[in-house]
Amino acid sequence: MTSKALDPVLAHVDSTLDDSLERLKALLRVPSISTDPAFKEDCDRAADWMVNELQSLGFASEKHATPGHPMVVAHDAGDVEGLHVLFYGHYDVQPVDPLELWSRDPFDPAVEETANGKVIRGRGAADDKGQLMTFVEACRAWKAVHGSLPVKVSMFFEGEEESGSPSLVPYMEEHAAALKADLALICDTGMFDPQTPAISTSLRGLAKLELSITGPDKDLHSGMYGGAAMNPARVMARVLADLHDETGRITLDGFYDGVPELSNAQRAQWDDLGFDADAFLGDVDLSIPAGEQGRSALEMIWSRPTCEINGMTSGYTGAGFKTVLPSQAHAKISFRLVGTQDPEAILAAFERHVAARVPADCKFEILEPEGSPATVMPVDNPAFEAAREALSDEWPRPAAFIGCGGSIPIAGYFQTLLGMDSLLIGFGRDDDQVHSPNEKYDLESFHKGIRSWVRVLDALSRQ
Amino acid sequence: MTSKALDPVLAHVDSTLDDSLERLKALLRVPSISTDPAFKEDCDRAADWMVNELQSLGFASEKHATPGHPMVVAHDAGDVEGLHVLFYGHYDVQPVDPLELWSRDPFDPAVEETANGKVIRGRGAADDKGQLMTFVEACRAWKAVHGSLPVKVSMFFEGEEESGSPSLVPYMEEHAAALKADLALICDTGMFDPQTPAISTSLRGLAKLELSITGPDKDLHSGMYGGAAMNPARVMARVLADLHDETGRITLDGFYDGVPELSNAQRAQWDDLGFDADAFLGDVDLSIPAGEQGRSALEMIWSRPTCEINGMTSGYTGAGFKTVLPSQAHAKISFRLVGTQDPEAILAAFERHVAARVPADCKFEILEPEGSPATVMPVDNPAFEAAREALSDEWPRPAAFIGCGGSIPIAGYFQTLLGMDSLLIGFGRDDDQVHSPNEKYDLESFHKGIRSWVRVLDALSRQ
Repeated sequence: MTSKALDPVLAHVDSTLDDSLERLKALLRVPSISTDPAFKEDCDRAADWMVNELQSLGFASEKHATPGHPMVVAHDAGDVEGLHVLFYGHYDVQPVDPLELWSRDPFDPAVEETANGKVIRGRGAADDKGQLMTFVEACRAWKAVHGSLPVKVSMFFEGEEESGSPSLVPYMEEHAAALKADLALICDTGMFDPQTPAISTSLRGLAKLELSITGPDKDLHSGMYGGAAMNPARVMARVLADLHDETGRITLDGFYDGVPELSNAQRAQWDDLGFDADAFLGDVDLSIPAGEQGRSALEMIWSRPTCEINGMTSGYTGAGFKTVLPSQAHAKISFRLVGTQDPEAILAAFERHVAARVPADCKFEILEPEGSPATVMPVDNPAFEAAREALSDEWPRPAAFIGCGGSIPIAGYFQTLLGMDSLLIGFGRDDDQVHSPNEKYDLESFHKGIRSWVRVLDALSRQ
Repeated sequence: MTSKALDPVLAHVDSTLDDSLERLKALLRVPSISTDPAFKEDCDRAADWMVNELQSLGFASEKHATPGHPMVVAHDAGDVEGLHVLFYGHYDVQPVDPLELWSRDPFDPAVEETANGKVIRGRGAADDKGQLMTFVEACRAWKAVHGSLPVKVSMFFEGEEESGSPSLVPYMEEHAAALKADLALICDTGMFDPQTPAISTSLRGLAKLELSITGPDKDLHSGMYGGAAMNPARVMARVLADLHDETGRITLDGFYDGVPELSNAQRAQWDDLGFDADAFLGDVDLSIPAGEQGRSALEMIWSRPTCEINGMTSGYTGAGFKTVLPSQAHAKISFRLVGTQDPEAILAAFERHVAARVPADCKFEILEPEGSPATVMPVDNPAFEAAREALSDEWPRPAAFIGCGGSIPIAGYFQTLLGMDSLLIGFGRDDDQVHSPNEKYDLESFHKGIRSWVRVLDALSRQ
């Protein structure tokens, strides 16, 4: 079901695409690299550009200073009844090194022809300036054709997403009232494939820690002490090996508490996606799904929890050989969490797992434990299904509710700090070279992305 | 039983100790650091010093060039019937860094008073110049008193022991005839304790290798691939953890083939030593012997084989955290061998152990495998018991046949290349600071060491 108001807006998007592109290019020309203090003024300039852009759309738009880069918050001046949405994006970009691997100046964006069609090339084209402009341009089209938006819209942009968002939580806590809406919209994710749009409805959480095990109080000669003195690398190997059983399950006590089974509807939708697990693993030269037996590769990355060794080191690791019996062994370990798994309970179970395996005369320490739970969106909220149908109308294949193996912290903050669920919709593709040289955003992603948001805003207006 | 010839030689050692000390100090003043090319001429000078010293004793003494530092070979010109012994030592020394931790110039040796008695302080005092001079001075005393040695003596000194002895095996192979004797004497080991002299009769062998396991062909994001892509650190942990069972035994197929049980006589001798395992482990802040259950700590280091992880690394090991799913994991692993354990068979069993645990879509590589068997001396050779009794006559407590946890390659070469067993007798102490700043050799080690060799030569003359 679409409204009669929709078609002229879509037509306007098509006829003014070149202007939309020029505005995106203007934003892409600002080298707003948030990690490098040398670009602090450029970040500020990108924030100013956003403020001006939103004011030109009739938004009350402000830049707010933080200890880092500024926040931009804008509220549509128009008074619309019904659902109030808050759109989130970030105006900062990744560094461009190594510059010599770029085919063009990363801050002199242009549309290029490629074997797969036209792309917009430049740093930030996909992450996140191109994506956020799909929404801004959708609003511009609605305003141009109808003079107003179909739902009440606020927008929120930060400039520190690529540098760990140090100011985000304090800012959100202080300005909760100004940011609170009924639903958040986040455009920092991707399509399932170039034909299939996606709404990411479950984001895995993360628990992480560093484990140090100390055996002897100094490195020893393995000839003199070998056999009698406990080697902490041997203890570490036992601790790490015992984290999984032979079927790929994680052995920590209570680890699977709060891990939901897929609903039949969700499983059917995922089956329909035709995910090619062989190609997914083949791309990285593997072929056997490494997780729990009886689970598909897609389940393993979207809906099952994991335990990974992210790093480990002990003893002599340089060239050649030293017959050292090391004093210490270290490992960095993380868990991806799903459903309502409790990160604190899992960190505590890990500590018991270690304590049970470290001999009484060795010591261990768990450093910098940190956890955040999974974020799970309520797909039974009718707005989600409405958005899914709107996306399906725009693209060749039906949109899917998908999982996301990684974490998108802002979605968690919207839930925990503002009590607000998020529609995570994005038009990125796997080959966008995000964070790498030659970043691009397909012109199709940009064009049909704007059209998609035009449709989603329309659909939400009927919620 | 001692001969009447012995007492005047011992008396001569006592009365000329100051002269012996001056000769040792002259040798210690030569900075013969073999690892550093800047000291090449000094190494040559130390070799010349040895040649002259031995000529002054009536030895036919020669310096032989090698691709590295020269060898010194000397044969007593006197014609003695009976046993022919070859004494081995090395005239090179370790570097002295960090120089600022020395209490004196390492190449300006002096006798210092300490809480534990007088010591000779300087680089090489214990390793190996002080030790080798105990034998040279014992020969000098025999010659001074009786005009001849009680047995036929040859000597062999290298100048590359501290830099891996690259010229040693080729030289020994080329000059086998000139070096072959009935028995080798090696003075590069220590006392059991300051009261108890020792003959090291079993030296553990060594098999070593580096293992690399590759999972995905590049480092991955653990959010995107975690769960589905096999983590090579997880495989490595399994491979390493499974090397020992819960009783501390090594699990490799056939690993204990050729591991002998201690004879009752040997066990009784070791029990008599009163080895303080609590103090040995307590020194390095441990308390529980880590080897096979039911074995003493002394057995673990002297007569049982081991498996040690000498180093391991995978993924991100720097400060902070990266949620990387690593492409590779590496470990350096070594085995200390005893009895007739076959290093090649053990390396092959290790490879099978790995192959059984690496998933079919991961790869592994074993790099630089190398092995040398244990060296076991025939303690039933009467020369060994005669030497043990001679040492027992000199020191407060009876001498013991002991094991040595590490390897002394020259003893193996004498067996395999020249078919010659070795009497490993030395007077070093655990606190000699060998390879470290402030190296010292107790004056008692030097004085009673000379007297010990005087007695051993006498005892061997009756074999």
